[in-house]
Amino acid sequence: MSKPTIKVLAKELGLAVSTVSKAIRDSHEISQETKDKVLKLAAELNYIPNPYASSLRRQKSRTIAVVIPEVADSFFSIAINGIEEVARQKGYHVLIYLTHESLQREIEILKEFKSGRVDGLLISVTRDTCSGTHITEAIESGLPVVFFDRMCEDIKAARVITDDYESSYKATRLLLERGCKRPAYLSISPNLSINQKREAGFLAAIKDAGTETKAGEVIQCEGTDEMITGQLQHLLNKKNKPDGLIASVEKLVPPVYFACKELGIRIPEDIRLIGFTNLTASPILNPSLTTITQPAFEIGNMAAALLFKGIEKSSFELSREKLIIPSQLQIRDSTR
Amino acid sequence: MSKPTIKVLAKELGLAVSTVSKAIRDSHEISQETKDKVLKLAAELNYIPNPYASSLRRQKSRTIAVVIPEVADSFFSIAINGIEEVARQKGYHVLIYLTHESLQREIEILKEFKSGRVDGLLISVTRDTCSGTHITEAIESGLPVVFFDRMCEDIKAARVITDDYESSYKATRLLLERGCKRPAYLSISPNLSINQKREAGFLAAIKDAGTETKAGEVIQCEGTDEMITGQLQHLLNKKNKPDGLIASVEKLVPPVYFACKELGIRIPEDIRLIGFTNLTASPILNPSLTTITQPAFEIGNMAAALLFKGIEKSSFELSREKLIIPSQLQIRDSTR
Repeated sequence: MSKPTIKVLAKELGLAVSTVSKAIRDSHEISQETKDKVLKLAAELNYIPNPYASSLRRQKSRTIAVVIPEVADSFFSIAINGIEEVARQKGYHVLIYLTHESLQREIEILKEFKSGRVDGLLISVTRDTCSGTHITEAIESGLPVVFFDRMCEDIKAARVITDDYESSYKATRLLLERGCKRPAYLSISPNLSINQKREAGFLAAIKDAGTETKAGEVIQCEGTDEMITGQLQHLLNKKNKPDGLIASVEKLVPPVYFACKELGIRIPEDIRLIGFTNLTASPILNPSLTTITQPAFEIGNMAAALLFKGIEKSSFELSREKLIIPSQLQIRDSTR
Repeated sequence: MSKPTIKVLAKELGLAVSTVSKAIRDSHEISQETKDKVLKLAAELNYIPNPYASSLRRQKSRTIAVVIPEVADSFFSIAINGIEEVARQKGYHVLIYLTHESLQREIEILKEFKSGRVDGLLISVTRDTCSGTHITEAIESGLPVVFFDRMCEDIKAARVITDDYESSYKATRLLLERGCKRPAYLSISPNLSINQKREAGFLAAIKDAGTETKAGEVIQCEGTDEMITGQLQHLLNKKNKPDGLIASVEKLVPPVYFACKELGIRIPEDIRLIGFTNLTASPILNPSLTTITQPAFEIGNMAAALLFKGIEKSSFELSREKLIIPSQLQIRDSTR
């Protein structure tokens, strides 16, 4: 038998070629029932869609890239789900590249895209990505790019972010209202856009609270979980130790609990804690954690929707787009 | 100026061409100092390595694929780190594909590899992958394949797994030793290789304990976190409810805590709990969770090392390789 084509499938099923094509690409326009029928016959006839032939025809790889620092963070793993939901509807593949916070690696990954391997890029930059020349170059080469969460302020590109400044301000105000006199902000990287805004929100809330409160401290944490736990033990052993903490990223949350447990410091009696995190386990921690919960799924979803607008309509001015989706302060026992 | 080549870089730096090439590929054979020098000059001269040209020369894409169900699970996110460590040393890119437990999606992803897009595949199958014809076809087409964690028992392929049966047996024994009379096993998929072994280990431990203990119950959990929490509330509201639980995957752990909290059931006083999980937060849950901790990093690392042996030496009989790395039972307050 000759190699089955999409036309053969369509004829056999009495469907339009475009319907079969969309069914195979898992388009949301086609009912599940039709998709099942098409896929069943495609399997029976051993039909293999030819992505490269159709890519050449359309000049598309039907693939988008997601470049992120890591997946061991619930924000990114949830955001990926939001991205994939849109990509699936569009019949696109999603390739995930991890930089592990290495700028050099990020540069190498983006160089690879020059060959047309992907049709669009969603990126959350490393903690060391400052100027972002490699990203500007990718945009100038015609690749649609959308920043999500972590971005380069100076690059004119689409972005979907959250209200880092405001949510950090609100969280710090909560610490002060609950009676904290020496709140501290735990930072993980001074370069990072999200960190700069969260830190600024923290400092503004301290300043606005006026003379009653001592200037809030900003603490740089670095290294592995164990190293950070050690740095925190050092901090919390000091005489004038903080009585309130903002953990600016999820990675810092377990080390705070570990350090407090080790030193016999009680949360919230001796120190109150708020974390920027989407951890499912936040309500079942001991004590349950007050969180700034980012709209991770929505950020991924909206960023992908924007990217596809940029991929599909060349007249769409993607680089002007900017979306800010607010985070939520969820109050639990760690700030009781 | 003409486009800089690797020879130009080598001449300029007084290094061998092969050294420069390895430095650019981030080979472990080259010192960090040399790498820095090479990358600095490469950036200055705007040297762009041509992966496709060199791929054609070597017939390699210098890319491996990791196909997994999801990243919102600490086992997979840690295993990826183990994989990437090896890939980085080899100068390879890692592409991560998520199936979201959809067999159809897994089949589509593997079809894409027929075009030579990747040099090797590490795969942890979906919960619905039974016969795995698509995987056999990939192997027969000459693609080196290594299963890690979740595999197809009947396919002759390399595998790196943990001792699911033994660790589940040990965990169940612990529940019985601590006085549980009605232990139950929370399952998430009857088809999955890892689930079958964990369930068998559970049932064997119950059987071996003899007449003192009633036959252990196996409970199927399905759906979203909220749905599973509902199913568990129903289970834990019954008169003869279990007094010990094995959560067979991480996803089931928060719903157990939520359901118990909702119903006022105390862990461990009313019900003891053990979870298969690599959650960093296990020691800080309320109460801290007794876990079967899988060697996630090592599994990823060893699976990648095997895969590269298969990629590099065509004489190496990859499909015969089988590695079992034991898990660890970490006893905490949830089984006190």
